[in-house]
Amino acid sequence: MPPPSGIELQPGAQGLDFANYFVSYGYLYHQKDMLQDRGRMTAYRNAILQNASCFEGKVVLDVGAGSGVLSIWAAMAGAKRVYAVEATSMAQHARRLVQQNGVQDVVVVLEGYMEAQELPEKVDLIVSEWMGYFLLREAMYDSVLAARDKWLKPGGAMYPSHAFLRMAPLCSALYGSRLAEFDEEVSQWGEFSSWMLDGNGINVNGLTGFFAREQQEYLLQSAQWCQLRQSEVIGDEFSVSEFDLHTTTTKELASFSTSFRSVISEDALLNAFGGWFDTDFNGSAAEPAPKPVTLTTAPESATHWAQQVFLVHPPLLVEVGDTLEGIVKVARQKLNHRLLWVQLTLTHSRAGVGQVGPERTLNFRID
Amino acid sequence: MPPPSGIELQPGAQGLDFANYFVSYGYLYHQKDMLQDRGRMTAYRNAILQNASCFEGKVVLDVGAGSGVLSIWAAMAGAKRVYAVEATSMAQHARRLVQQNGVQDVVVVLEGYMEAQELPEKVDLIVSEWMGYFLLREAMYDSVLAARDKWLKPGGAMYPSHAFLRMAPLCSALYGSRLAEFDEEVSQWGEFSSWMLDGNGINVNGLTGFFAREQQEYLLQSAQWCQLRQSEVIGDEFSVSEFDLHTTTTKELASFSTSFRSVISEDALLNAFGGWFDTDFNGSAAEPAPKPVTLTTAPESATHWAQQVFLVHPPLLVEVGDTLEGIVKVARQKLNHRLLWVQLTLTHSRAGVGQVGPERTLNFRID
Repeated sequence: MPPPSGIELQPGAQGLDFANYFVSYGYLYHQKDMLQDRGRMTAYRNAILQNASCFEGKVVLDVGAGSGVLSIWAAMAGAKRVYAVEATSMAQHARRLVQQNGVQDVVVVLEGYMEAQELPEKVDLIVSEWMGYFLLREAMYDSVLAARDKWLKPGGAMYPSHAFLRMAPLCSALYGSRLAEFDEEVSQWGEFSSWMLDGNGINVNGLTGFFAREQQEYLLQSAQWCQLRQSEVIGDEFSVSEFDLHTTTTKELASFSTSFRSVISEDALLNAFGGWFDTDFNGSAAEPAPKPVTLTTAPESATHWAQQVFLVHPPLLVEVGDTLEGIVKVARQKLNHRLLWVQLTLTHSRAGVGQVGPERTLNFRID
Repeated sequence: MPPPSGIELQPGAQGLDFANYFVSYGYLYHQKDMLQDRGRMTAYRNAILQNASCFEGKVVLDVGAGSGVLSIWAAMAGAKRVYAVEATSMAQHARRLVQQNGVQDVVVVLEGYMEAQELPEKVDLIVSEWMGYFLLREAMYDSVLAARDKWLKPGGAMYPSHAFLRMAPLCSALYGSRLAEFDEEVSQWGEFSSWMLDGNGINVNGLTGFFAREQQEYLLQSAQWCQLRQSEVIGDEFSVSEFDLHTTTTKELASFSTSFRSVISEDALLNAFGGWFDTDFNGSAAEPAPKPVTLTTAPESATHWAQQVFLVHPPLLVEVGDTLEGIVKVARQKLNHRLLWVQLTLTHSRAGVGQVGPERTLNFRID
């Protein structure tokens, strides 16, 4: 499946990008997983059906429609016309659902890349479920924002309208288990190394440090999917970024940095940061949603996104009232722009003491 | 990572192919897995070191050298020069191992695609570990055969020299567990379907059959990795194909069919076929290996390839002396030519009875 022409890709991203990205979305099994996510479903259902007045008589575009559920809801809410654009063959199932749910006179399913579509008209409203882990993974917002710039009428509405990326310091159970796994891998390399020499006559000792570094990157410096409990949060959550989907640009989402400050709320071992997002459905400035909806993926929420955990190794001993300050940088990975890099630069200070320990810089992949 | 120019790709294969295929081979973790495979290591070590007379003073090419172990052994066996070609950054680790094992005057590590290399001379011998599941998965033979046609001197030797693809009828424990998994998935779809209607107002009943088919393809019609016991084999093994690596062509490996016949050796429920390969290291016709070596991945062997299991659903009741006859077709998948399709056409007959049941056609993916 070659990428459509005219899509801006990072150098080298093409191969790792289009061909594989869409594959899983072509399976009903995967769609079912997303449709079974009650937090996700409730938010979108309420955002559309409880704000039916914003959909009545409107022309709607559903970007990455999947099985077409958002489009069907938009039709049920009274939309005049819905264009459901889906890149994978899931479009054919969407067409079946549209028919079976009696909205075939309203919903037009278009199979193909959003960027390659020619719609017969501009639209009043764009609805899309484009969020990946840590909001930005998958970079599906590229297609949503391109669709907005090309097809949304001036003053039209984005559903969701706003997105918030947040983080907080943690004392996470994941730290111990990942560290144990790391130690085990390094220890097994030692045994392997002996066997290579004794059994095969080949000295691999020179690679031991490289192996440890590879494992460290994989086990300790890659963000982990995790369902966090509120009890693991040990300080103020802080905002990493806020986006108004009506005005933000791909460039703004692709790479940014922000300073943060978080006050610690308990004596604890800080061994990680958690990251998650919320999206709001507020409607447009011209036509605010009468019943605004928030989809949160914060700790204790139970969505398929869960949260991302960024381990801090070695950990920090923190006390109530301590302050963490620093900078979070988020950027796309160069080789595959659907994946992310996150960098935390961090200082830890205590009232009456000043800075505790050196400034730390922590790098993470979100793969 | 764009593919090198001049490589023949199936239509549509490019994206799914080069970019992702090589990625895992760049990790020491993955190399370690392969290096810990004792069956694999013993066969290659013996093939090289016990046939050192075939390597002495020779120019050797190692295609897909990985961490460079085969090249180091070739140098230890007395090769004059070894070109170790590796597409991933593992080449840098290979260079370290070459240095650390004192063969840097013999082994030249070249980082890049085999097809893109310009060697300063033709070679006497090509050594390569190119085999994937069911021998042909990964289609790495493309690069090996291209290297042979371009760089091997007339009469030069291929290590391994021959490859054999084999199958046998099974009564496999995998059948029951996969069937239970399938039933569970279909039953869960039923619950999901009710929830979609009651909780979300959307009727998804029309997709039930499609979901079941998708699950059937995934759970029952995709080959499964499995470590088979000899006790699961219930009839004669049969040859699917034999290749002489000195003469075979990419075309011959890419798509072929063969008739087979297997006599059942016990009263049993035939619920699967097993598939595996052997490779022989016989040297060339001009210079046969003094100590030929076979690497087998047959049932009871313990290599990382294990065996592939192709489920027969519904199963067949067979008796001692029954005959299975038919045709096996093997072909590359169109969308990703590193993956395979396998089709079995099958008749079952019994002495004094004739054909039992209708001819069956079974299709499988090897993904």
